[in-house]
Amino acid sequence: MKTVSIVGVGLIGGSFALALRKAGFKGRILGVSSKPATEAALARGAIDEALPLFKAAAASDFIYLAQPIEKILQTIEVIDSYAQPGALITDAGSTKRAIVDRASHISRARFIGGHPMAGKELRGVEEADADLFRGRPYVLTGRDAELESWIGHIGARLVVLSAEEHDRLVAVTSHLPQLISTALASVIGSEPDAAQVAGPAALDLTRLALSPYEIWRDIFATNAEPIDAALASFIAKLEELRATLRSPQMERAFDQASAAAKALRR
Amino acid sequence: MKTVSIVGVGLIGGSFALALRKAGFKGRILGVSSKPATEAALARGAIDEALPLFKAAAASDFIYLAQPIEKILQTIEVIDSYAQPGALITDAGSTKRAIVDRASHISRARFIGGHPMAGKELRGVEEADADLFRGRPYVLTGRDAELESWIGHIGARLVVLSAEEHDRLVAVTSHLPQLISTALASVIGSEPDAAQVAGPAALDLTRLALSPYEIWRDIFATNAEPIDAALASFIAKLEELRATLRSPQMERAFDQASAAAKALRR
Repeated sequence: MKTVSIVGVGLIGGSFALALRKAGFKGRILGVSSKPATEAALARGAIDEALPLFKAAAASDFIYLAQPIEKILQTIEVIDSYAQPGALITDAGSTKRAIVDRASHISRARFIGGHPMAGKELRGVEEADADLFRGRPYVLTGRDAELESWIGHIGARLVVLSAEEHDRLVAVTSHLPQLISTALASVIGSEPDAAQVAGPAALDLTRLALSPYEIWRDIFATNAEPIDAALASFIAKLEELRATLRSPQMERAFDQASAAAKALRR
Repeated sequence: MKTVSIVGVGLIGGSFALALRKAGFKGRILGVSSKPATEAALARGAIDEALPLFKAAAASDFIYLAQPIEKILQTIEVIDSYAQPGALITDAGSTKRAIVDRASHISRARFIGGHPMAGKELRGVEEADADLFRGRPYVLTGRDAELESWIGHIGARLVVLSAEEHDRLVAVTSHLPQLISTALASVIGSEPDAAQVAGPAALDLTRLALSPYEIWRDIFATNAEPIDAALASFIAKLEELRATLRSPQMERAFDQASAAAKALRR
């Protein structure tokens, strides 16, 4: 890896650039983004130079797509014609199947889907952090020794999954929690006096409902089937609890759920 | 209020006793509990003397029932025959209708249901804290000037609600979140690889699933109908989101839920 293009220098793209630098990357880092974003990224020291996509891609042996999902899909349409033969392209989109499918035409360059399971509530390169990926899972949908070694250098924990498996798992662990929180906030909001008695449980479970829709639109558009399946499993489990609310079976359900919650924390 | 009996000197009963002292209560505080619990409460300085229920009740003009719900229901069966005429009895149970109904026979003494919306993950008088109720809602199902003034002195925020209204609201703000968390942990637990990609969303929403069933058994036994109704509303809202996952309506649903989540935080 000699020259890197970061396409979309926001929180994730900017953090990846800073993380590479901190991990000892000595090559050039080119930034492709809107003028305000590349100016902020230059000011932040995240990129060495701002270039349009075709110039940056032609100059890079590694291209990192850190745009919103819909933009990644658009970039993938054109990137192969700009890229160097054999260049490695990866992305940081929150869903993988739609992106990996769209990238199947890439033939001059190579494409491996990626998803760093890291983020912040605030966005933009101003919030970028060289340690954003430290200790967090970093999913790849394929193998590449050099990319894997950089993922290790930036402190992330490599997880290799097929695009389908990734999408099915994040539907359950990320997209389902968001919809649950949104639905719960909505139900609580329909009780005018609920705020008077709301405690930490209600606050904890409605925090995700504060997320802006803008980042979720693309996720729902590109992962609808796994999300639908996750919702179906969750509603079925809730109906099961509802039917056994006063039966001794509830104790077993609590014990199993508690064991699962503990396993998630190991 | 001259002499107070605390029946059940665990986290809540012990904290109420310490909070009264800190707020300037100068009378005697009697503790009714198991021998280990009263010994710990004496050691903690939460009570002045341990007595059996009939002696403590006969000596008190204020009786505070801070036992588990089923025990409160049992104590209410016998307390009226022990209590001083006109003594005020209140409780700290997490559901109110079953308790207030059971207390309807109290005629020598007076009964007002109560629910301090405060707690901790750890239990026992060792964890008691004079500031446990500070800034938290404290629900009463009736009015009494002296009790209300002590609730103010210990820093809690008085909320007067009927037992039915209380139970309906906590079903939505507390019991529903618990069941959601239990169901989600269970669904995530059924995916062996989910832990590999689980992020803060999954961890936040499964924290309540770590709660022991023991405190929930009585809540489900005494609040099944409002919980069933809350589950029905929540499942209906989730089905509505599921049906509109890829439609522009989702943006409105997110905006409404976000506004409700913000209102809860004001």
